[in-house]
Amino acid sequence: MLRTHIFRRVTIVGVGFMGGSLGMALKKQGLAREVVGISLHQETLDRAIKAQAIDLGFTDVREGVANAELVVLATPVQTIIEYFSLINPHLRRGCLVTDMGSVKSEVVIKAESLLTAGFFIGSHPLTGSEKNGVEHAHADLFQNTRCIMTPTAKTNPVVKEKIKFLWTKLGMRVDFLSPDEHDKIFAQISHLPHLLAYALMESIPPESLRHALQGFKDLTRIASSSPSVWDDICLTNAQHILHALDGTVKQLAFLRKVIIQRDQKNLFQFFTRAKEKQDSLH
Amino acid sequence: MLRTHIFRRVTIVGVGFMGGSLGMALKKQGLAREVVGISLHQETLDRAIKAQAIDLGFTDVREGVANAELVVLATPVQTIIEYFSLINPHLRRGCLVTDMGSVKSEVVIKAESLLTAGFFIGSHPLTGSEKNGVEHAHADLFQNTRCIMTPTAKTNPVVKEKIKFLWTKLGMRVDFLSPDEHDKIFAQISHLPHLLAYALMESIPPESLRHALQGFKDLTRIASSSPSVWDDICLTNAQHILHALDGTVKQLAFLRKVIIQRDQKNLFQFFTRAKEKQDSLH
Repeated sequence: MLRTHIFRRVTIVGVGFMGGSLGMALKKQGLAREVVGISLHQETLDRAIKAQAIDLGFTDVREGVANAELVVLATPVQTIIEYFSLINPHLRRGCLVTDMGSVKSEVVIKAESLLTAGFFIGSHPLTGSEKNGVEHAHADLFQNTRCIMTPTAKTNPVVKEKIKFLWTKLGMRVDFLSPDEHDKIFAQISHLPHLLAYALMESIPPESLRHALQGFKDLTRIASSSPSVWDDICLTNAQHILHALDGTVKQLAFLRKVIIQRDQKNLFQFFTRAKEKQDSLH
Repeated sequence: MLRTHIFRRVTIVGVGFMGGSLGMALKKQGLAREVVGISLHQETLDRAIKAQAIDLGFTDVREGVANAELVVLATPVQTIIEYFSLINPHLRRGCLVTDMGSVKSEVVIKAESLLTAGFFIGSHPLTGSEKNGVEHAHADLFQNTRCIMTPTAKTNPVVKEKIKFLWTKLGMRVDFLSPDEHDKIFAQISHLPHLLAYALMESIPPESLRHALQGFKDLTRIASSSPSVWDDICLTNAQHILHALDGTVKQLAFLRKVIIQRDQKNLFQFFTRAKEKQDSLH
Protein backbone atom coordinates (compact mmCIF):
# COMPACT_ATOMS: atom_id res chain seq x y z
CA MET A 1 0.00 0.00 0.00
CA LEU A 2 1.37 3.38 -0.99
CA ARG A 3 1.35 6.08 1.61
CA THR A 4 -0.15 9.40 0.68
CA HIS A 5 2.20 11.07 -1.72
CA ILE A 6 2.14 14.83 -1.56
CA PHE A 7 3.38 16.41 -4.77
CA ARG A 8 5.54 19.46 -4.24
CA ARG A 9 4.46 20.99 -7.52
CA VAL A 10 1.68 19.93 -9.87
CA THR A 11 1.30 21.74 -13.18
CA ILE A 12 -2.08 21.76 -14.89
CA VAL A 13 -2.15 22.62 -18.58
CA GLY A 14 -5.52 24.21 -19.34
CA VAL A 15 -7.28 25.82 -16.41
CA GLY A 16 -10.93 25.79 -17.48
CA PHE A 17 -13.70 23.86 -15.79
CA MET A 18 -11.88 20.52 -15.55
CA GLY A 19 -8.35 21.79 -14.93
CA GLY A 20 -9.59 24.42 -12.51
CA SER A 21 -11.60 21.86 -10.54
CA LEU A 22 -8.54 19.63 -10.37
CA GLY A 23 -6.45 22.46 -8.94
CA MET A 24 -9.07 23.16 -6.29
CA ALA A 25 -9.43 19.47 -5.45
CA LEU A 26 -5.66 18.90 -5.12
CA LYS A 27 -5.40 21.81 -2.71
CA LYS A 28 -8.49 20.86 -0.72
CA GLN A 29 -7.22 17.30 -0.26
CA GLY A 30 -3.70 18.49 0.56
CA LEU A 31 -2.23 16.47 -2.31
CA ALA A 32 -0.14 19.29 -3.80
CA ARG A 33 1.92 21.93 -2.03
CA GLU A 34 1.82 24.15 -5.10
CA VAL A 35 -0.45 24.11 -8.12
CA VAL A 36 0.78 25.82 -11.28
CA GLY A 37 -1.40 26.57 -14.29
CA ILE A 38 -0.45 26.92 -17.94
CA SER A 39 -2.63 28.68 -20.47
CA LEU A 40 -2.09 30.53 -23.73
CA HIS A 41 -3.94 33.49 -22.24
CA GLN A 42 -2.79 35.50 -19.23
CA GLU A 43 -6.41 36.49 -18.63
CA THR A 44 -7.41 32.82 -18.19
CA LEU A 45 -4.59 32.37 -15.67
CA ASP A 46 -5.68 35.49 -13.80
CA ARG A 47 -9.23 34.13 -13.53
CA ALA A 48 -7.92 30.76 -12.30
CA ILE A 49 -5.76 32.47 -9.65
CA LYS A 50 -8.70 34.61 -8.58
CA ALA A 51 -10.86 31.45 -8.31
CA GLN A 52 -8.08 29.90 -6.17
CA ALA A 53 -7.74 27.03 -8.61
CA ILE A 54 -3.99 27.61 -9.06
CA ASP A 55 -1.27 29.38 -7.09
CA LEU A 56 0.84 30.52 -10.04
CA GLY A 57 0.20 30.81 -13.76
CA PHE A 58 2.45 30.85 -16.80
CA THR A 59 1.84 31.37 -20.49
CA ASP A 60 5.36 30.11 -21.06
CA VAL A 61 5.51 26.30 -21.16
CA ARG A 62 9.12 26.04 -20.00
CA GLU A 63 8.51 28.12 -16.90
CA GLY A 64 5.19 26.36 -16.31
CA VAL A 65 6.50 22.80 -16.16
CA ALA A 66 9.83 23.62 -14.51
CA ASN A 67 10.27 21.51 -11.37
CA ALA A 68 6.81 19.95 -11.64
CA GLU A 69 6.61 16.43 -10.22
CA LEU A 70 3.35 15.89 -12.03
CA VAL A 71 1.91 17.49 -15.16
CA VAL A 72 -1.80 17.02 -15.90
CA LEU A 73 -3.08 17.95 -19.36
CA ALA A 74 -6.62 19.26 -19.11
CA THR A 75 -7.26 20.74 -22.56
CA PRO A 76 -9.26 19.43 -25.52
CA VAL A 77 -7.77 16.23 -26.94
CA GLN A 78 -5.91 17.60 -29.96
CA THR A 79 -4.34 20.27 -27.78
CA ILE A 80 -3.23 17.60 -25.29
CA ILE A 81 -1.35 15.92 -28.13
CA GLU A 82 0.24 19.19 -29.24
CA TYR A 83 1.48 19.84 -25.72
CA PHE A 84 3.47 16.60 -25.53
CA SER A 85 6.15 18.01 -27.83
CA LEU A 86 6.00 21.41 -26.14
CA ILE A 87 6.49 20.15 -22.58
CA ASN A 88 8.90 17.27 -23.26
CA PRO A 89 12.14 19.31 -23.46
CA HIS A 90 11.40 21.02 -20.14
CA LEU A 91 10.19 18.15 -17.94
CA ARG A 92 12.04 17.48 -14.69
CA ARG A 93 13.60 14.00 -14.59
CA GLY A 94 11.07 11.42 -13.38
CA CYS A 95 8.12 13.74 -13.90
CA LEU A 96 4.75 11.98 -14.07
CA VAL A 97 2.37 13.02 -16.83
CA THR A 98 -1.29 12.22 -17.21
CA ASP A 99 -4.25 13.79 -18.96
CA MET A 100 -8.01 14.18 -18.57
CA GLY A 101 -9.04 13.69 -22.18
CA SER A 102 -12.19 11.88 -23.35
CA VAL A 103 -10.33 9.99 -26.09
CA LYS A 104 -7.43 7.74 -25.22
CA SER A 105 -5.89 5.75 -28.12
CA GLU A 106 -4.54 8.69 -30.06
CA VAL A 107 -3.41 10.42 -26.87
CA VAL A 108 -1.62 7.37 -25.49
CA ILE A 109 0.09 6.48 -28.77
CA LYS A 110 1.38 10.03 -29.16
CA ALA A 111 2.42 10.28 -25.51
CA GLU A 112 4.41 7.06 -25.71
CA SER A 113 6.33 8.28 -28.74
CA LEU A 114 6.75 11.97 -27.85
CA LEU A 115 7.11 12.06 -24.06
CA THR A 116 10.62 10.66 -23.83
CA ALA A 117 11.42 12.61 -20.68
CA GLY A 118 8.39 11.77 -18.51
CA PHE A 119 6.32 8.82 -17.33
CA PHE A 120 2.88 8.88 -18.91
CA ILE A 121 -0.39 7.13 -18.22
CA GLY A 122 -3.74 8.12 -19.72
CA SER A 123 -6.70 9.06 -17.51
CA HIS A 124 -10.33 9.93 -18.17
CA PRO A 125 -12.22 11.21 -15.15
CA LEU A 126 -15.89 10.52 -15.86
CA THR A 127 -17.20 13.82 -14.71
CA GLY A 128 -17.80 17.18 -16.23
CA SER A 129 -20.47 19.69 -16.99
CA GLU A 130 -22.07 21.54 -19.85
CA LYS A 131 -20.73 24.62 -18.08
CA ASN A 132 -17.38 25.92 -19.19
CA GLY A 133 -14.71 28.00 -17.49
CA VAL A 134 -12.98 28.13 -14.15
CA GLU A 135 -15.85 30.17 -12.70
CA HIS A 136 -17.93 26.97 -12.56
CA ALA A 137 -15.06 24.82 -11.27
CA HIS A 138 -15.37 23.27 -7.83
CA ALA A 139 -13.17 21.18 -5.54
CA ASP A 140 -15.72 18.36 -5.14
CA LEU A 141 -16.21 17.65 -8.85
CA PHE A 142 -14.46 14.30 -8.60
CA GLN A 143 -16.12 13.03 -5.41
CA ASN A 144 -18.09 9.81 -5.89
CA THR A 145 -17.33 9.59 -9.60
CA ARG A 146 -15.27 7.19 -11.67
CA CYS A 147 -12.02 7.45 -13.54
CA ILE A 148 -10.91 5.20 -16.39
CA MET A 149 -7.13 4.78 -16.61
CA THR A 150 -5.63 3.27 -19.75
CA PRO A 151 -2.28 1.62 -18.99
CA THR A 152 -0.43 -0.23 -21.73
CA ALA A 153 2.47 -2.69 -21.80
CA LYS A 154 4.76 0.33 -21.74
CA THR A 155 3.30 1.85 -18.59
CA ASN A 156 5.54 1.95 -15.53
CA PRO A 157 3.65 0.04 -12.79
CA VAL A 158 4.74 2.44 -10.04
CA VAL A 159 3.44 5.39 -12.06
CA LYS A 160 0.19 3.55 -12.59
CA GLU A 161 -0.22 3.05 -8.83
CA LYS A 162 0.73 6.63 -7.99
CA ILE A 163 -1.76 8.14 -10.39
CA LYS A 164 -4.45 5.67 -9.39
CA PHE A 165 -3.82 6.66 -5.80
CA LEU A 166 -4.15 10.34 -6.69
CA TRP A 167 -7.53 9.89 -8.39
CA THR A 168 -8.72 7.68 -5.56
CA LYS A 169 -7.80 10.35 -3.02
CA LEU A 170 -9.88 12.83 -5.02
CA GLY A 171 -12.90 10.58 -4.54
CA MET A 172 -12.93 8.54 -7.74
CA ARG A 173 -13.27 4.82 -8.24
CA VAL A 174 -10.62 3.82 -10.78
CA ASP A 175 -11.14 1.22 -13.52
CA PHE A 176 -8.54 0.11 -16.06
CA LEU A 177 -9.30 -0.37 -19.75
CA SER A 178 -7.04 -0.57 -22.76
CA PRO A 179 -7.03 2.72 -24.75
CA ASP A 180 -8.88 1.06 -27.62
CA GLU A 181 -11.51 -0.59 -25.38
CA HIS A 182 -12.04 2.79 -23.73
CA ASP A 183 -12.50 4.56 -27.04
CA LYS A 184 -14.90 1.95 -28.38
CA ILE A 185 -17.10 2.00 -25.27
CA PHE A 186 -17.14 5.79 -24.92
CA ALA A 187 -17.88 6.22 -28.62
CA GLN A 188 -21.05 4.24 -27.87
CA ILE A 189 -22.17 5.63 -24.53
CA SER A 190 -20.88 9.18 -24.69
CA HIS A 191 -19.67 10.41 -28.08
CA LEU A 192 -22.58 8.98 -30.10
CA PRO A 193 -25.25 10.32 -27.70
CA HIS A 194 -23.68 13.77 -28.03
CA LEU A 195 -23.86 13.56 -31.83
CA LEU A 196 -27.52 12.48 -31.63
CA ALA A 197 -28.33 15.38 -29.33
CA TYR A 198 -26.53 17.85 -31.59
CA ALA A 199 -28.22 16.44 -34.73
CA LEU A 200 -31.66 16.41 -33.11
CA MET A 201 -31.23 19.99 -31.94
CA GLU A 202 -30.09 21.08 -35.39
CA SER A 203 -33.03 19.39 -37.12
CA ILE A 204 -35.84 20.96 -35.05
CA PRO A 205 -37.30 24.20 -36.45
CA PRO A 206 -36.80 27.02 -33.92
CA GLU A 207 -40.54 27.79 -33.88
CA SER A 208 -41.26 24.29 -32.53
CA LEU A 209 -38.84 24.68 -29.66
CA ARG A 210 -41.14 26.87 -27.61
CA HIS A 211 -43.26 23.77 -26.99
CA ALA A 212 -40.26 21.71 -25.81
CA LEU A 213 -40.96 19.59 -22.75
CA GLN A 214 -38.66 18.53 -19.94
CA GLY A 215 -37.92 15.20 -21.67
CA PHE A 216 -36.67 17.08 -24.71
CA LYS A 217 -34.57 19.37 -22.58
CA ASP A 218 -33.03 16.42 -20.70
CA LEU A 219 -32.29 14.65 -23.94
CA THR A 220 -30.63 17.62 -25.62
CA ARG A 221 -28.91 19.04 -22.53
CA ILE A 222 -25.59 17.57 -23.66
CA ALA A 223 -25.89 19.52 -26.95
CA SER A 224 -24.97 22.49 -24.78
CA SER A 225 -21.45 21.08 -24.27
CA SER A 226 -18.45 22.96 -25.58
CA PRO A 227 -18.27 22.73 -29.40
CA SER A 228 -14.47 22.91 -29.38
CA VAL A 229 -14.27 19.89 -27.06
CA TRP A 230 -16.60 17.89 -29.27
CA ASP A 231 -15.16 18.60 -32.70
CA ASP A 232 -11.88 17.44 -31.20
CA ILE A 233 -13.38 14.21 -29.87
CA CYS A 234 -15.02 13.48 -33.23
CA LEU A 235 -11.73 13.81 -35.06
CA THR A 236 -9.57 11.90 -32.58
CA ASN A 237 -12.02 9.00 -32.13
CA ALA A 238 -13.50 9.07 -35.63
CA GLN A 239 -13.39 5.37 -36.39
CA HIS A 240 -15.23 4.16 -33.30
CA ILE A 241 -17.69 7.06 -33.47
CA LEU A 242 -18.59 6.38 -37.10
CA HIS A 243 -19.09 2.70 -36.31
CA ALA A 244 -21.38 3.49 -33.38
CA LEU A 245 -23.25 6.11 -35.41
CA ASP A 246 -23.84 3.62 -38.22
CA GLY A 247 -25.26 1.18 -35.68
CA THR A 248 -27.86 3.67 -34.49
CA VAL A 249 -28.73 4.86 -37.99
CA LYS A 250 -29.32 1.22 -38.90
CA GLN A 251 -31.78 0.91 -36.01
CA LEU A 252 -33.49 4.13 -37.11
CA ALA A 253 -33.79 2.73 -40.65
CA PHE A 254 -35.41 -0.38 -39.19
CA LEU A 255 -37.88 1.75 -37.23
CA ARG A 256 -38.62 3.73 -40.37
CA LYS A 257 -39.37 0.54 -42.25
CA VAL A 258 -41.68 -0.97 -39.65
CA ILE A 259 -43.56 2.33 -39.22
CA ILE A 260 -44.18 2.46 -42.98
CA GLN A 261 -45.29 -1.18 -42.90
CA ARG A 262 -47.54 -0.42 -39.89
CA ASP A 263 -45.87 -3.40 -38.23
CA GLN A 264 -47.10 -2.86 -34.68
CA LYS A 265 -45.71 -6.14 -33.39
CA ASN A 266 -42.15 -5.33 -34.42
CA LEU A 267 -42.44 -1.79 -33.06
CA PHE A 268 -43.69 -3.11 -29.74
CA GLN A 269 -40.89 -5.68 -29.52
CA PHE A 270 -38.26 -3.10 -30.44
CA PHE A 271 -39.46 -0.64 -27.80
CA THR A 272 -39.78 -3.41 -25.22
CA ARG A 273 -36.18 -4.55 -25.74
CA ALA A 274 -34.94 -0.96 -25.49
CA LYS A 275 -37.02 -0.34 -22.37
CA GLU A 276 -35.64 -3.45 -20.69
CA LYS A 277 -32.10 -2.28 -21.36
CA GLN A 278 -32.88 1.22 -20.08
CA ASP A 279 -34.56 -0.16 -16.96
CA SER A 280 -31.46 -2.30 -16.29
CA LEU A 281 -29.33 0.87 -16.03
CA HIS A 282 -30.65 1.77 -12.62
CA MET B 1 -66.21 34.25 -17.37
CA LEU B 2 -67.57 30.80 -16.59
CA ARG B 3 -68.24 29.98 -12.99
CA THR B 4 -66.74 26.78 -11.64
CA HIS B 5 -68.64 23.93 -13.16
CA ILE B 6 -68.84 20.88 -10.94
CA PHE B 7 -69.52 17.74 -12.95
CA ARG B 8 -71.92 15.35 -11.28
CA ARG B 9 -70.30 12.37 -12.92
CA VAL B 10 -67.05 12.14 -14.87
CA THR B 11 -66.13 8.84 -16.52
CA ILE B 12 -62.48 8.12 -17.25
CA VAL B 13 -61.73 5.40 -19.78
CA GLY B 14 -58.38 3.85 -18.90
CA VAL B 15 -57.31 4.22 -15.28
CA GLY B 16 -53.54 3.85 -15.47
CA PHE B 17 -51.04 6.56 -14.60
CA MET B 18 -52.69 9.39 -16.58
CA GLY B 19 -56.35 8.44 -16.06
CA GLY B 20 -55.75 7.64 -12.42
CA SER B 21 -54.00 10.95 -11.81
CA LEU B 22 -56.93 12.74 -13.48
CA GLY B 23 -59.42 11.02 -11.17
CA MET B 24 -57.39 12.03 -8.12
CA ALA B 25 -57.01 15.60 -9.37
CA LEU B 26 -60.73 16.02 -10.15
CA LYS B 27 -61.61 14.90 -6.64
CA LYS B 28 -58.91 16.95 -4.94
CA GLN B 29 -60.06 20.11 -6.75
CA GLY B 30 -63.73 19.33 -6.12
CA LEU B 31 -64.52 19.38 -9.83
CA ALA B 32 -66.44 16.08 -9.91
CA ARG B 33 -68.96 14.71 -7.43
CA GLU B 34 -68.36 11.19 -8.70
CA VAL B 35 -65.53 9.71 -10.75
CA VAL B 36 -66.21 6.50 -12.66
CA GLY B 37 -63.53 4.35 -14.28
CA ILE B 38 -63.78 2.04 -17.26
CA SER B 39 -61.23 -0.68 -17.95
CA LEU B 40 -61.22 -4.02 -19.70
CA HIS B 41 -59.87 -5.59 -16.53
CA GLN B 42 -61.68 -5.70 -13.20
CA GLU B 43 -58.31 -5.98 -11.47
CA THR B 44 -57.23 -2.62 -12.91
CA LEU B 45 -60.45 -1.05 -11.65
CA ASP B 46 -59.92 -2.57 -8.20
CA ARG B 47 -56.43 -1.08 -8.04
CA ALA B 48 -57.77 2.32 -9.13
CA ILE B 49 -60.49 2.22 -6.44
CA LYS B 50 -57.92 1.19 -3.83
CA ALA B 51 -55.70 4.10 -4.91
CA GLN B 52 -58.76 6.40 -4.56
CA ALA B 53 -58.44 7.46 -8.18
CA ILE B 54 -62.08 6.51 -8.94
CA ASP B 55 -65.24 5.92 -6.90
CA LEU B 56 -66.75 3.23 -9.09
CA GLY B 57 -65.43 0.99 -11.85
CA PHE B 58 -67.05 -0.82 -14.77
CA THR B 59 -65.76 -3.22 -17.37
CA ASP B 60 -69.04 -2.68 -19.20
CA VAL B 61 -68.95 0.44 -21.38
CA ARG B 62 -72.70 1.07 -21.27
CA GLU B 63 -72.81 1.07 -17.49
CA GLY B 64 -69.58 3.05 -17.32
CA VAL B 65 -70.70 6.02 -19.39
CA ALA B 66 -74.35 6.04 -18.22
CA ASN B 67 -75.27 9.50 -16.91
CA ALA B 68 -71.75 10.86 -17.30
CA GLU B 69 -71.62 14.59 -18.02
CA LEU B 70 -68.04 14.25 -19.16
CA VAL B 71 -66.11 11.30 -20.57
CA VAL B 72 -62.30 11.51 -20.71
CA LEU B 73 -60.43 8.94 -22.77
CA ALA B 74 -57.07 8.18 -21.17
CA THR B 75 -55.88 5.12 -23.07
CA PRO B 76 -53.24 4.73 -25.81
CA VAL B 77 -54.25 6.55 -29.01
CA GLN B 78 -55.56 3.64 -31.09
CA THR B 79 -57.68 2.51 -28.17
CA ILE B 80 -59.11 6.01 -27.79
CA ILE B 81 -60.30 5.77 -31.38
CA GLU B 82 -61.81 2.32 -30.81
CA TYR B 83 -63.76 3.63 -27.83
CA PHE B 84 -65.56 6.32 -29.85
CA SER B 85 -67.83 3.72 -31.45
CA LEU B 86 -68.20 1.82 -28.20
CA ILE B 87 -69.30 4.76 -26.07
CA ASN B 88 -71.36 6.66 -28.66
CA PRO B 89 -74.60 4.64 -28.34
CA HIS B 90 -74.62 5.07 -24.55
CA LEU B 91 -73.71 8.72 -24.10
CA ARG B 92 -76.10 10.94 -22.16
CA ARG B 93 -77.48 13.81 -24.29
CA GLY B 94 -75.09 16.77 -24.19
CA CYS B 95 -72.22 14.74 -22.78
CA LEU B 96 -68.80 16.32 -23.22
CA VAL B 97 -65.99 14.11 -24.45
CA THR B 98 -62.27 14.79 -24.49
CA ASP B 99 -59.11 12.71 -24.49
CA MET B 100 -55.54 12.83 -23.22
CA GLY B 101 -53.80 11.34 -26.25
CA SER B 102 -50.39 12.41 -27.58
CA VAL B 103 -51.57 12.39 -31.21
CA LYS B 104 -54.46 14.57 -32.30
CA SER B 105 -55.29 14.56 -36.04
CA GLU B 106 -56.40 10.96 -36.28
CA VAL B 107 -58.23 11.18 -32.95
CA VAL B 108 -60.08 14.39 -33.83
CA ILE B 109 -61.06 13.23 -37.33
CA LYS B 110 -62.45 9.97 -35.96
CA ALA B 111 -64.19 11.68 -33.06
CA GLU B 112 -65.91 14.14 -35.35
CA SER B 113 -67.29 11.36 -37.53
CA LEU B 114 -68.06 8.74 -34.89
CA LEU B 115 -69.16 10.69 -31.82
CA THR B 116 -72.57 11.79 -33.07
CA ALA B 117 -74.06 11.81 -29.58
CA GLY B 118 -71.48 13.87 -27.67
CA PHE B 119 -69.54 17.11 -27.92
CA PHE B 120 -65.86 16.42 -28.52
CA ILE B 121 -62.69 18.45 -28.26
CA GLY B 122 -59.17 17.01 -28.30
CA SER B 123 -56.75 17.60 -25.41
CA HIS B 124 -53.12 16.74 -24.79
CA PRO B 125 -51.92 17.43 -21.26
CA LEU B 126 -48.14 17.85 -21.50
CA THR B 127 -47.27 15.79 -18.51
CA GLY B 128 -46.57 12.17 -17.80
CA SER B 129 -43.95 9.82 -16.54
CA GLU B 130 -41.91 6.81 -17.56
CA LYS B 131 -43.74 5.12 -14.70
CA ASN B 132 -46.89 3.20 -15.54
CA GLY B 133 -49.91 2.23 -13.52
CA VAL B 134 -52.30 3.85 -11.08
CA GLU B 135 -49.89 3.12 -8.22
CA HIS B 136 -47.70 5.98 -9.46
CA ALA B 137 -50.64 8.32 -10.14
CA HIS B 138 -50.92 11.50 -8.11
CA ALA B 139 -53.40 14.35 -7.80
CA ASP B 140 -50.85 17.08 -8.52
CA LEU B 141 -49.61 15.70 -11.83
CA PHE B 142 -51.20 18.54 -13.78
CA GLN B 143 -50.12 21.42 -11.55
CA ASN B 144 -47.93 23.98 -13.33
CA THR B 145 -47.92 22.11 -16.60
CA ARG B 146 -49.39 22.86 -20.01
CA CYS B 147 -52.22 21.43 -22.03
CA ILE B 148 -52.63 21.71 -25.78
CA MET B 149 -56.26 21.70 -26.93
CA THR B 150 -57.03 21.19 -30.61
CA PRO B 151 -60.37 22.78 -31.55
CA THR B 152 -61.56 22.71 -35.15
CA ALA B 153 -64.25 24.56 -37.10
CA LYS B 154 -66.69 21.93 -35.85
CA THR B 155 -65.93 22.44 -32.16
CA ASN B 156 -68.74 23.88 -30.05
CA PRO B 157 -67.32 27.09 -28.51
CA VAL B 158 -69.04 26.51 -25.16
CA VAL B 159 -67.56 23.02 -24.94
CA LYS B 160 -64.15 24.47 -25.74
CA GLU B 161 -64.48 26.97 -22.88
CA LYS B 162 -65.77 24.37 -20.42
CA ILE B 163 -62.92 21.93 -21.07
CA LYS B 164 -60.37 24.71 -21.08
CA PHE B 165 -61.74 25.80 -17.73
CA LEU B 166 -61.44 22.25 -16.39
CA TRP B 167 -57.77 21.92 -17.36
CA THR B 168 -57.04 25.38 -16.03
CA LYS B 169 -58.59 24.46 -12.68
CA LEU B 170 -56.29 21.43 -12.56
CA GLY B 171 -53.30 23.76 -12.80
CA MET B 172 -52.55 23.73 -16.52
CA ARG B 173 -51.88 26.60 -18.89
CA VAL B 174 -53.94 25.90 -22.01
CA ASP B 175 -52.76 26.61 -25.56
CA PHE B 176 -54.74 25.99 -28.75
CA LEU B 177 -53.24 24.45 -31.86
CA SER B 178 -54.86 22.84 -34.89
CA PRO B 179 -54.65 19.01 -34.71
CA ASP B 180 -52.17 18.94 -37.59
CA GLU B 181 -49.97 21.70 -36.15
CA HIS B 182 -49.95 19.81 -32.87
CA ASP B 183 -48.94 16.55 -34.51
CA LYS B 184 -46.19 18.16 -36.57
CA ILE B 185 -44.65 19.93 -33.59
CA PHE B 186 -44.88 16.96 -31.23
CA ALA B 187 -43.46 14.63 -33.88
CA GLN B 188 -40.39 16.88 -33.73
CA ILE B 189 -40.02 17.61 -30.03
CA SER B 190 -41.45 14.46 -28.47
CA HIS B 191 -42.04 11.51 -30.80
CA LEU B 192 -38.73 11.79 -32.66
CA PRO B 193 -36.66 12.14 -29.45
CA HIS B 194 -38.32 8.98 -28.14
CA LEU B 195 -37.39 7.09 -31.32
CA LEU B 196 -33.80 8.32 -31.04
CA ALA B 197 -33.61 7.19 -27.42
CA TYR B 198 -35.08 3.78 -28.28
CA ALA B 199 -32.74 3.34 -31.28
CA LEU B 200 -29.69 4.45 -29.31
CA MET B 201 -30.54 2.07 -26.49
CA GLU B 202 -31.04 -0.77 -28.93
CA SER B 203 -27.74 -0.14 -30.71
CA ILE B 204 -25.48 -0.17 -27.62
CA PRO B 205 -23.98 -3.57 -26.71
CA PRO B 206 -25.11 -4.58 -23.20
CA GLU B 207 -21.51 -4.98 -22.01
CA SER B 208 -20.86 -1.28 -22.69
CA LEU B 209 -23.82 -0.17 -20.60
CA ARG B 210 -22.09 -0.75 -17.27
CA HIS B 211 -19.96 2.29 -18.06
CA ALA B 212 -22.98 4.47 -18.81
CA LEU B 213 -22.77 7.96 -17.34
CA GLN B 214 -25.48 10.25 -16.05
CA GLY B 215 -25.68 12.04 -19.40
CA PHE B 216 -26.44 8.75 -21.11
CA LYS B 217 -29.05 7.87 -18.54
CA ASP B 218 -30.74 11.27 -18.90
CA LEU B 219 -30.72 10.96 -22.66
CA THR B 220 -32.21 7.46 -22.74
CA ARG B 221 -34.57 7.86 -19.78
CA ILE B 222 -37.52 8.30 -22.16
CA ALA B 223 -36.72 4.88 -23.71
CA SER B 224 -38.20 3.52 -20.51
CA SER B 225 -41.66 4.78 -21.54
CA SER B 226 -44.46 2.30 -22.16
CA PRO B 227 -43.87 0.40 -25.44
CA SER B 228 -47.62 0.05 -26.07
CA VAL B 229 -48.09 3.83 -25.86
CA TRP B 230 -45.26 4.42 -28.28
CA ASP B 231 -46.03 1.88 -30.98
CA ASP B 232 -49.46 3.48 -31.01
CA ILE B 233 -48.08 6.99 -31.39
CA CYS B 234 -45.77 5.86 -34.22
CA LEU B 235 -48.66 4.41 -36.19
CA THR B 236 -51.14 7.23 -35.61
CA ASN B 237 -48.67 10.04 -36.35
CA ALA B 238 -46.55 8.16 -38.88
CA GLN B 239 -46.28 10.84 -41.54
CA HIS B 240 -45.03 13.65 -39.31
CA ILE B 241 -42.75 11.27 -37.40
CA LEU B 242 -41.11 9.93 -40.57
CA HIS B 243 -40.57 13.46 -41.82
CA ALA B 244 -38.96 14.52 -38.55
CA LEU B 245 -36.87 11.33 -38.43
CA ASP B 246 -35.60 11.92 -41.96
CA GLY B 247 -34.56 15.44 -40.94
CA THR B 248 -32.39 14.15 -38.10
CA VAL B 249 -30.93 11.29 -40.15
CA LYS B 250 -29.96 13.89 -42.76
CA GLN B 251 -28.09 15.86 -40.09
CA LEU B 252 -26.39 12.67 -38.91
CA ALA B 253 -25.33 11.94 -42.50
CA PHE B 254 -23.85 15.42 -42.68
CA LEU B 255 -21.93 14.85 -39.44
CA ARG B 256 -20.71 11.51 -40.80
CA LYS B 257 -19.42 13.22 -43.92
CA VAL B 258 -17.58 16.03 -42.15
CA ILE B 259 -16.01 13.61 -39.65
CA ILE B 260 -14.67 11.49 -42.53
CA GLN B 261 -13.40 14.64 -44.23
CA ARG B 262 -11.83 15.77 -40.92
CA ASP B 263 -13.60 19.08 -41.50
CA GLN B 264 -13.13 20.60 -38.08
CA LYS B 265 -14.53 23.99 -39.09
CA ASN B 266 -17.88 22.54 -40.18
CA LEU B 267 -18.07 20.34 -37.07
CA PHE B 268 -17.40 23.32 -34.84
CA GLN B 269 -20.03 25.42 -36.62
CA PHE B 270 -22.60 22.61 -36.47
CA PHE B 271 -22.07 22.06 -32.74
CA THR B 272 -22.09 25.80 -32.08
CA ARG B 273 -25.45 26.28 -33.84
CA ALA B 274 -26.94 23.32 -31.92
CA LYS B 275 -25.54 24.62 -28.64
CA GLU B 276 -27.02 28.06 -29.23
CA LYS B 277 -30.44 26.50 -29.82
CA GLN B 278 -30.12 24.31 -26.73
CA ASP B 279 -29.00 27.26 -24.61
CA SER B 280 -32.03 29.24 -25.82
CA LEU B 281 -34.37 26.62 -24.28
CA HIS B 282 -33.74 27.84 -20.75
